[in-house]
Amino acid sequence: MARVFNFNAGPAALPLEALEKAQAEMLDFGGTGMSVMEISHRSKEFQGVVDDAEAKVRELMAVSDDYAVLFLQGGASLQFAMIPMNLRREGKTADYIDTGSWASKAVKEGKIGGNANVAWSGKDANYIRVPKQSELKLTPGAEYLHICSNETIGGIRFTEFPVSDAPLVADMSSEMMSRVIDVDKFGLIYAGAQKNIGPSGLALVIIRKDLIERTPETVPIFLRYKTHSEDGSLYNTPNTWGVYVLKLVMEWMEALGGIPAIQRINEAKAAALYSAIDSSEFWRCPVERESRSIMNVVWRLPSEQLEEQFVAEAKKAGMVGLKGHRSVGGIRASIYNAVPKAAVDALVAFMKEFEAKNG
Amino acid sequence: MARVFNFNAGPAALPLEALEKAQAEMLDFGGTGMSVMEISHRSKEFQGVVDDAEAKVRELMAVSDDYAVLFLQGGASLQFAMIPMNLRREGKTADYIDTGSWASKAVKEGKIGGNANVAWSGKDANYIRVPKQSELKLTPGAEYLHICSNETIGGIRFTEFPVSDAPLVADMSSEMMSRVIDVDKFGLIYAGAQKNIGPSGLALVIIRKDLIERTPETVPIFLRYKTHSEDGSLYNTPNTWGVYVLKLVMEWMEALGGIPAIQRINEAKAAALYSAIDSSEFWRCPVERESRSIMNVVWRLPSEQLEEQFVAEAKKAGMVGLKGHRSVGGIRASIYNAVPKAAVDALVAFMKEFEAKNG
Repeated sequence: MARVFNFNAGPAALPLEALEKAQAEMLDFGGTGMSVMEISHRSKEFQGVVDDAEAKVRELMAVSDDYAVLFLQGGASLQFAMIPMNLRREGKTADYIDTGSWASKAVKEGKIGGNANVAWSGKDANYIRVPKQSELKLTPGAEYLHICSNETIGGIRFTEFPVSDAPLVADMSSEMMSRVIDVDKFGLIYAGAQKNIGPSGLALVIIRKDLIERTPETVPIFLRYKTHSEDGSLYNTPNTWGVYVLKLVMEWMEALGGIPAIQRINEAKAAALYSAIDSSEFWRCPVERESRSIMNVVWRLPSEQLEEQFVAEAKKAGMVGLKGHRSVGGIRASIYNAVPKAAVDALVAFMKEFEAKNG
Repeated sequence: MARVFNFNAGPAALPLEALEKAQAEMLDFGGTGMSVMEISHRSKEFQGVVDDAEAKVRELMAVSDDYAVLFLQGGASLQFAMIPMNLRREGKTADYIDTGSWASKAVKEGKIGGNANVAWSGKDANYIRVPKQSELKLTPGAEYLHICSNETIGGIRFTEFPVSDAPLVADMSSEMMSRVIDVDKFGLIYAGAQKNIGPSGLALVIIRKDLIERTPETVPIFLRYKTHSEDGSLYNTPNTWGVYVLKLVMEWMEALGGIPAIQRINEAKAAALYSAIDSSEFWRCPVERESRSIMNVVWRLPSEQLEEQFVAEAKKAGMVGLKGHRSVGGIRASIYNAVPKAAVDALVAFMKEFEAKNG
């Protein structure tokens, strides 16, 4: 059994320590004589898991009591729908910034059942940067301003977050807990877990408590934030395995020194990779420098044929997941929290070799 | 490490063989050098998992091509909301039969955004039976008739299914694949996986293809059956771990001889337990005989104090999950597919002892 260097965009690498713990406990979780998948979500053992998971999220991200921390299902995609259903009242408008594939999926859901104003779009310029604050056409009295803080496909991110009078709502799926942020600047933060903090089938939602009260009564019970908030994410059976694995990932993050320590590692990983790309005309990153993601690094080679060869040879060398998204092509290395610096070093070394042979 | 006899109502027992396989493959799924949780849902390896899972569901249940088989998130509770959103058109009525706690949750969601007619309710008689066909007050031209085919809490089931001109929609969460059914009699069958067919965080939906077309355009994209059907359950990242474990459970079912073989075992388990209950005045099953569930067996003892003692002593003897639901009290043994006959035999033997000492 040889573990590979995993650059998948999501579902993505998980910390080996978390996987080994899950493996060891598979038939007997905490002395129960059952897998964690076989115990009631109402048992004291699982309540311990969900309480721990929430406490660790709060501690790592410094989430205050003004916010609820929810473990939901349906990934970020269900949030695209739940956000306008819950936060946009009759006749009001929500603002969206369109920075790429994921932001525009959110816009599409936002246009159903009410008004969605696109305050800025990078589409015509192929999504190679995020906007400056001065470029935003915000709606006075908007219900919220939605952003995707890091675009997995385009490889761009908001290094600084935009400012609005309306609550800021951010899809952070592909950069959740990768850098220190000030939660108090947001009305709602959400993430599909499968990129940085756990397995797929789980979404983490951090919502300012006053926003929970906005939901119109026409919204189905299950789709109200209030429903899940009132029951501590246990209104119905949650993805218990997902919450459990997320908890193991949080423990691994804690042991590493929390988000400040992880951010330093992530910045070093990204710097090493961008530096290799910028070192030669052989590689080309299409993203404007100030908007470069430190989670999803995208670049091109001189030809599509060389790109294919690069991906194939890297795979043989034990580095997988480097093919760019089908909609944009090229190369993409997703270097989430659980991707070690050693993986990036191996990739950089491989790039040097590849360029020497094919440059 | 001692595995216990697991009578949990859900999440519930999984086949040991499936858990052991998942454990063995945790760090390296199918030679990928990654956990199944770490691979892309768009990879050929995961496509193999979801294709296999669907094929096995179709084979085990004899699902024809007239139906789509979907792996969704949100459990049965999201289906309570999605069903009226998708299947009940403007101004039309949906019929519901209220047989207990779960059916009435479905009714509650059904009352949002349109008309829900309760065609029969067992509430006043404490939900001790399902209705006869002649008792139903069906709406002419109803969009569908919703039932919960097996009530986990009340321990009752439809031994025969009701008939309506409208498509029959059934929540089968707590009896999915426990007995042979004729799928063609249903418009839609759904189940949260965590009772009989997999882990929590996954819902299996089997829907007649013509019904997929009904959805009004006001429904959010993510909440349309069509969205998930068109993309083979891969519109967004599914609960990949859940689909994988479900596939392992399906393989275990196949090896046992499929649903007919499992039904025989389930009937033998239920017969042994009901026979023990009926053998003495010490035990009392509140459910009418024709409506008795073969998955969730509920009964009472002469006093609540004896019930508490029973649950505590059973736990010491390695039998867990026997406490009745908090809303009804008493004893409940959930004897799903993955609960072996040996577990029921051990429980029956324990009951004899307990009665001899306390009767």
